[in-house]
Amino acid sequence: MPHRAPGSPGHSRTDHLSGRPITYYRPKGSPDIHRLLDDGFQAFNAARLSEACRIYADKMLRPEHDTMIGLTVAGALTPAGLGGCIVELMERGLIDFLISTGANLYHDLHYALNFTLRRGSPFVNDVELYEQGVIRIYDVLFPAKVLMETDAYIREFLGRSGLDGPVATSELHYRLGRDLLERQSGCEEYSVVAAAAKYGVPIYTSSPGDSSIGMNVAYHELMHGSRLMIDPNKDVNEICAIVLAGHQNGCIILGGGSPKNFYLQAQPTLWEVYNIPKGGNDYFIQMTTDQVVWGGLSGATPAEAVSWGKVNPGVLPDTVVCYCDSTIAFPLFAEYAVGSQWNRRTRRELVHRRDELVATLKREAEAARDNPRPHGEE
Amino acid sequence: MPHRAPGSPGHSRTDHLSGRPITYYRPKGSPDIHRLLDDGFQAFNAARLSEACRIYADKMLRPEHDTMIGLTVAGALTPAGLGGCIVELMERGLIDFLISTGANLYHDLHYALNFTLRRGSPFVNDVELYEQGVIRIYDVLFPAKVLMETDAYIREFLGRSGLDGPVATSELHYRLGRDLLERQSGCEEYSVVAAAAKYGVPIYTSSPGDSSIGMNVAYHELMHGSRLMIDPNKDVNEICAIVLAGHQNGCIILGGGSPKNFYLQAQPTLWEVYNIPKGGNDYFIQMTTDQVVWGGLSGATPAEAVSWGKVNPGVLPDTVVCYCDSTIAFPLFAEYAVGSQWNRRTRRELVHRRDELVATLKREAEAARDNPRPHGEE
Amino acid sequence: MPHRAPGSPGHSRTDHLSGRPITYYRPKGSPDIHRLLDDGFQAFNAARLSEACRIYADKMLRPEHDTMIGLTVAGALTPAGLGGCIVELMERGLIDFLISTGANLYHDLHYALNFTLRRGSPFVNDVELYEQGVIRIYDVLFPAKVLMETDAYIREFLGRSGLDGPVATSELHYRLGRDLLERQSGCEEYSVVAAAAKYGVPIYTSSPGDSSIGMNVAYHELMHGSRLMIDPNKDVNEICAIVLAGHQNGCIILGGGSPKNFYLQAQPTLWEVYNIPKGGNDYFIQMTTDQVVWGGLSGATPAEAVSWGKVNPGVLPDTVVCYCDSTIAFPLFAEYAVGSQWNRRTRRELVHRRDELVATLKREAEAARDNPRPHGEE
Amino acid sequence: MPHRAPGSPGHSRTDHLSGRPITYYRPKGSPDIHRLLDDGFQAFNAARLSEACRIYADKMLRPEHDTMIGLTVAGALTPAGLGGCIVELMERGLIDFLISTGANLYHDLHYALNFTLRRGSPFVNDVELYEQGVIRIYDVLFPAKVLMETDAYIREFLGRSGLDGPVATSELHYRLGRDLLERQSGCEEYSVVAAAAKYGVPIYTSSPGDSSIGMNVAYHELMHGSRLMIDPNKDVNEICAIVLAGHQNGCIILGGGSPKNFYLQAQPTLWEVYNIPKGGNDYFIQMTTDQVVWGGLSGATPAEAVSWGKVNPGVLPDTVVCYCDSTIAFPLFAEYAVGSQWNRRTRRELVHRRDELVATLKREAEAARDNPRPHGEE
Repeated sequence: MPHRAPGSPGHSRTDHLSGRPITYYRPKGSPDIHRLLDDGFQAFNAARLSEACRIYADKMLRPEHDTMIGLTVAGALTPAGLGGCIVELMERGLIDFLISTGANLYHDLHYALNFTLRRGSPFVNDVELYEQGVIRIYDVLFPAKVLMETDAYIREFLGRSGLDGPVATSELHYRLGRDLLERQSGCEEYSVVAAAAKYGVPIYTSSPGDSSIGMNVAYHELMHGSRLMIDPNKDVNEICAIVLAGHQNGCIILGGGSPKNFYLQAQPTLWEVYNIPKGGNDYFIQMTTDQVVWGGLSGATPAEAVSWGKVNPGVLPDTVVCYCDSTIAFPLFAEYAVGSQWNRRTRRELVHRRDELVATLKREAEAARDNPRPHGEE
Repeated sequence: MPHRAPGSPGHSRTDHLSGRPITYYRPKGSPDIHRLLDDGFQAFNAARLSEACRIYADKMLRPEHDTMIGLTVAGALTPAGLGGCIVELMERGLIDFLISTGANLYHDLHYALNFTLRRGSPFVNDVELYEQGVIRIYDVLFPAKVLMETDAYIREFLGRSGLDGPVATSELHYRLGRDLLERQSGCEEYSVVAAAAKYGVPIYTSSPGDSSIGMNVAYHELMHGSRLMIDPNKDVNEICAIVLAGHQNGCIILGGGSPKNFYLQAQPTLWEVYNIPKGGNDYFIQMTTDQVVWGGLSGATPAEAVSWGKVNPGVLPDTVVCYCDSTIAFPLFAEYAVGSQWNRRTRRELVHRRDELVATLKREAEAARDNPRPHGEE
Repeated sequence: MPHRAPGSPGHSRTDHLSGRPITYYRPKGSPDIHRLLDDGFQAFNAARLSEACRIYADKMLRPEHDTMIGLTVAGALTPAGLGGCIVELMERGLIDFLISTGANLYHDLHYALNFTLRRGSPFVNDVELYEQGVIRIYDVLFPAKVLMETDAYIREFLGRSGLDGPVATSELHYRLGRDLLERQSGCEEYSVVAAAAKYGVPIYTSSPGDSSIGMNVAYHELMHGSRLMIDPNKDVNEICAIVLAGHQNGCIILGGGSPKNFYLQAQPTLWEVYNIPKGGNDYFIQMTTDQVVWGGLSGATPAEAVSWGKVNPGVLPDTVVCYCDSTIAFPLFAEYAVGSQWNRRTRRELVHRRDELVATLKREAEAARDNPRPHGEE
Repeated sequence: MPHRAPGSPGHSRTDHLSGRPITYYRPKGSPDIHRLLDDGFQAFNAARLSEACRIYADKMLRPEHDTMIGLTVAGALTPAGLGGCIVELMERGLIDFLISTGANLYHDLHYALNFTLRRGSPFVNDVELYEQGVIRIYDVLFPAKVLMETDAYIREFLGRSGLDGPVATSELHYRLGRDLLERQSGCEEYSVVAAAAKYGVPIYTSSPGDSSIGMNVAYHELMHGSRLMIDPNKDVNEICAIVLAGHQNGCIILGGGSPKNFYLQAQPTLWEVYNIPKGGNDYFIQMTTDQVVWGGLSGATPAEAVSWGKVNPGVLPDTVVCYCDSTIAFPLFAEYAVGSQWNRRTRRELVHRRDELVATLKREAEAARDNPRPHGEE
């Protein structure tokens, strides 16, 4: 890289923070974009993106399919302003639950708290940034105090929340979202965490210690003797229960990483651990730049997932991987969905139904244990 | 890897060729797409694409900059229907010359000759395709006879053209384009080669033996004793002459490969071989998925090009690389340009000025030889 | 996508499982490989790998530097037989702690339990595999019952372990390793989890619910009312404490993903949350195929980490990223280290010092809270 | 990238050129490396590299297979010192002909002429390099005068060669190699171009105007009125003739790019243009970092080549793509071959048999024209 010259004349801090503020762009359902995706995106990854749009808009969202839809998010999408697409889809009931890296949720809080992240360049002098207290996420720049003040907000929230003892990440994020809604009026327009709380969409994090939210929870335990802790068991069981409750199941995977794995392990858990023959996903959409030939999970294909029972063997025509940066592909995808026929669904508000769904999972698992069927017999 | 199942039930030939015909989508200058690129593409590669659009629309096309603009094309863009974007830019005078792999020009002829290429899938059984006489370019499918008949057309053209002796590729392609315009009325709407001939845009190929056009020229020599041959010297000198004639210089590089190298070597040739201190490019836009860390030229950055004198050291702010499949990025880019303020320029019709420009190059090179200046003193 | 023909004649299950067993190859310190890395790997990624070897062997392992060394592992390395390199490095005291995806630890158990994984091909029919009960990890194949029996072992272990209540993943993995050492004599030769327990190397998992180990812990809670749960707070604090205890700090990052993030957030946690000015890493080695331009954390460079305080600004010469599949780069790297001068260190056995180190962290954090220093003043 | 700090303190020119000289490392056939490839490289790309080694050593080089073996080279391999592996394979008769980018041949001349290229870093200030007259190829650094003096040598050679009129690139490179052998005694040890001339291995370039050699030929024409020109027809026909002469055919493709295409089009030319049913390749080895999903030819797989008749449908088991930087993979591959059973073959010295082979091609093509068989009937 640098396609800009390293060693270019030094910038003062003001320069580094002179870019346009990043905002949460909201897709409007443009007919022109719909047409481009249908008629102009005909081959290669353009065609894959076009297929992904049609699988989502024509099949997953078709009312009679009643698809339980999970969105998984890895990569710095909220810093890049992609939260607006997620908010739009949640508000319209087009996704039912969310699995995200902690970093995306933490950085979403900056928007909720009215801090400003700015457009910048990846070709800057990081030693200079370090000295000037400017933080860089690839080409997104902001003052280090945004981190400090967001951390302070989290610690205050943890104190006033009364949370004590093991919780699911969905509970922690829901409580955080409610706190934001109360304190930052209207912030559901520019915060994924707040909008999710408002619209009842549960948010999970696969690596709960792996972000500043988790770091502050750990601080709270070490320094204040708090007993609040994330219980990953609850997350595993809630996601299994949600997937089990789906009439059809489908996912939209942005990036890959541990959120992808966390979503995709639900069906094997049902089958391999709980002995419940749920079957695999009916729809599978991924936008990624990772490659199958590197052998990692992020790049693994729907076909490989078939051997694990993660994807139904009969549905491969309804799976697609588009190799493209999500910052380009996802806004186009969201525009297409919003501009399509079934662009609103009744929201399931799963955040309020978690206990009920886990109870069903437990009941079915007990029945399966008491009346075991040999594996493979479905 | 197949994200569709290998080993799926066999398809008859008709099935393989049942996809929608691929057409030459023409950008219309959609304001919605303009807005998405300005306001929604804020970070990461989305921001790079947005920057590329603004560098092109606001700087390279600004009338007072009078930029000599080359477009280089590698990767199967005409099979994917991207020729429509190139035709639109040529018709509007927004690019001045073209360097392409031979394959893109050869496959463009299928459209000119009214053959049909179809949308398909990359997840098909190639042994089956081979047996059924279906040709595959990634996910574009068409009958093998399209190749045979296009080859027959080329051989007939070579025969009737009267071309004999060494020619530049620009001459061969221009003559081919004139032949198409005469025989396939209106084909400048759906053929890059024909449109280039009509609008006077010279087309070069860096690896002239490296496509079915070159293969048929070679056949013509071996079997008919023709003396027609491509003279790469003429290409090298014409491109140097065109670059030398630019007030400002800039390029749009799709993919990379030998067309990128062929374009970028013009300035070093002027400097290193002809001793003419032209300086490097003023603008540099690349859309690629190749990576700098693999060390190849396709992935090399504008910064590396500075050390070679290919890019002006002062202009790095006007260089950008967007990492994205051209099938996605280029239509968005073309829509933006067509929807911008300076969306028409007087066409330079360089194809008719090649002799004059090469004569100027020769004159300046002779002057430089007779009055040599030490290198580095500019 | 298949570079082997999809739709090739069907294979029986025996065929799919006819490849050579995968074993834990142990590096021997070959002088030939040392010489190739020094003299033959001179430019591009070969040179980066050569630099990585020298940074590790000549600097990180130099006795007077007393470097606290973390290894992070993402991607299916134990299925590919790379566990032997990790065992060798642990046995020699060349790494001090390990952060891994759960999947690598889970699949390591197959080896410990004497199941056989086999060499295969990625170009197989997954629907057929699914029907035959064969599991595929890219090109590694094994019967589904290996999963079932490994799960059964985990559940039995959980039952007999007596573990109840919140634990760190280091504790869970240590207990699992001790159980293996007792029941599978000699398995420390072919199991990372067992060898880590024997040599006192703590193993952390950043996404604890995100593997079959975590799935079975969740089952244990739902179905048996167990109170065993992973407490990510403990992991966060233990890793901070270990990093704080380092005289110098350095990491070897295989792949990237959440283990990379989990390691790298330790210094920012110390600085941003605990207000302890530890400073960043002194050495940073990464082997990955992810790219910085996609903007994800896996591909983020040491330079970007500087702006966050994750890497010391003065040490960039001791950081290197080698873009290469770990299955190729890591065995070469391990051969080099084993064949170098400082190829043994006294093992720290950190697994037994975790409480003491966390107590030190708490003490320093309390001191920092009581005598706060403004940020940036170090 | 920069994983080294941009903006680090300025380096003087001496610093930039203080790295170790790059030399042509010669593989010795190490048994340790052979063992690592057989036993330690068991899955993912390590396994692909291991397979590639066995296909080459056990099948392509097996005497009774009498395989006509082409090596294609793209990417800056001679600057990186990989020329030594190519020289070793040529000297042993293990490759029969070579297709290379012009840049690799041009930079090989620096070694032949005893100039020094040095190990460096990709993280340097290119504006500074430009000002100091230092040229950078990724992380290889050398003074600009190396270019000037190499160019001067080429121009002098062109003058004294007496070459006038159209020639194949194989002829130009052979004459250049003879000139080097005469003037630089012993340079066949450290020059691919010289060694090829000595051992009778023809070298082709697919894009003849696309390097400093081509630039100087063009200069020679424009300024001296020379009639020397590259005739791509001759190259196309010679390569077709060589492939036609193979009992079995196989290729080793480093990188991809136009050399890959130039090699692979030989069989379709025979079939589609000359109507000679030669069939496709029997063996296909590629080392690349390009990906099939980007749709370019460099990343296209052997399977896709089947539909074009470039690869024999029955041989897909003898095709392999290893995704790895050639600077790492190719030395390992060459060590394996040199350390194997059939590590010497009688050299074919094709450079002296080109006329005879083209005559055979012409004879067979005339027979095919006079007795046409319908396509597909073989």
